[in-house]
Amino acid sequence: MSLAVELRLRVHDLVETYGRLLDEDKLEAWVELFAETCRYEIISRENREQNLPLSLMLCDNKDMLRDRIFSLREANIYNIHRDCHVIGLVRVTQGVGAAFAATASYALFQSNQEGDSRLFSVGRYEMDLVEDDGRLLIARQIVVVDTGAIPTLLATPI
Amino acid sequence: MSLAVELRLRVHDLVETYGRLLDEDKLEAWVELFAETCRYEIISRENREQNLPLSLMLCDNKDMLRDRIFSLREANIYNIHRDCHVIGLVRVTQGVGAAFAATASYALFQSNQEGDSRLFSVGRYEMDLVEDDGRLLIARQIVVVDTGAIPTLLATPI
Amino acid sequence: MSLAVELRLRVHDLVETYGRLLDEDKLEAWVELFAETCRYEIISRENREQNLPLSLMLCDNKDMLRDRIFSLREANIYNIHRDCHVIGLVRVTQGVGAAFAATASYALFQSNQEGDSRLFSVGRYEMDLVEDDGRLLIARQIVVVDTGAIPTLLATPI
Repeated sequence: MSLAVELRLRVHDLVETYGRLLDEDKLEAWVELFAETCRYEIISRENREQNLPLSLMLCDNKDMLRDRIFSLREANIYNIHRDCHVIGLVRVTQGVGAAFAATASYALFQSNQEGDSRLFSVGRYEMDLVEDDGRLLIARQIVVVDTGAIPTLLATPI
Repeated sequence: MSLAVELRLRVHDLVETYGRLLDEDKLEAWVELFAETCRYEIISRENREQNLPLSLMLCDNKDMLRDRIFSLREANIYNIHRDCHVIGLVRVTQGVGAAFAATASYALFQSNQEGDSRLFSVGRYEMDLVEDDGRLLIARQIVVVDTGAIPTLLATPI
Repeated sequence: MSLAVELRLRVHDLVETYGRLLDEDKLEAWVELFAETCRYEIISRENREQNLPLSLMLCDNKDMLRDRIFSLREANIYNIHRDCHVIGLVRVTQGVGAAFAATASYALFQSNQEGDSRLFSVGRYEMDLVEDDGRLLIARQIVVVDTGAIPTLLATPI
């Protein structure tokens, strides 16, 4: 085992926090899990495999991510559902220097105001992490989705 | 990292056992995961957020929990389904003294006798744990459900 | 805690790799997670509980497993779906000598070429693991499925 136990647990906690903050609708706190220089992208598995640059959502810096959350908050139709992320086993790998990579599959369930729950999206997180001043942050999050239908406008992050 | 690795693993194991015993229909053993002074509650996320005292299921002591399981065993219509809990990443936090808190989201799937599986409930466990004579026990389990439709009578625990 | 932390993490990683390689359609690499003497079996929970020898899929040695993957590759109708395994908390127990057992529940989602995702199978992995020359390998994998409907021909492993 090349990676220290403590590092693995810290990565585990970061991924757990990522899903929980989304579920709790704490989107502003969720943004703060990202490094200042960051990228957030949702892409279909098909496009990912073919290296096509077509994203379902793309924020290539943190301000853009903040703007997106701000827009969601302003939109009237926002929050007509509740998210529940169930994230599977996390794989952690060492990158170069203070960089790490993590991946995990997820299932995202959404429940409407009547309490009906449905499978909304399944896929895989591919995260690049950096250590910044003792804190682990997300430098790049690629959400590779198997599920195709994602409303492109006003969707909450996955 | 403030919590020792070993403690985290013990909490992980307790949460794992919680789901597995329910899936295996070992409900009597499942009850024994709870402390003598305990509370088990299923509440909708909406009521939880609004601090409404309306539970979908509530047992505020261990005898009540035992009675509930006993009733399930007596009921003829019991066990017409099989449960499968898929529990996501576990967050562990330190409480006061020998107390810890754990949370994890879950998806509960039910399969009927024809082998049809469906999503039954998604939500989040909020567990208060205590250490009692070297054993970790559940002092309080709040199941915060996103999914509304739960048969109130004769339902197996989530 | 009787098992060393490092061993638990290695088992966790093996189970994670198991699901990820299937999702990535790296079936040949997936086969190499098994020991030379191995058994792979998919069985319904009902038959498992009644000790009935009826499997939905059975490969009782590694060559048989290799053959099965080879057949899948040859079949024209192969890979009309994408798999996404979400595996829950892993329980690790010590066996005799260099043997360990692991269990975890899983949910397997399949997405078709139109990007529609659906729940395909839920159940539980029951794995016997062995240490071979410093590497952890699967000696026996029993997939106990709650979901009944599995196409018996040309199905990818679960």
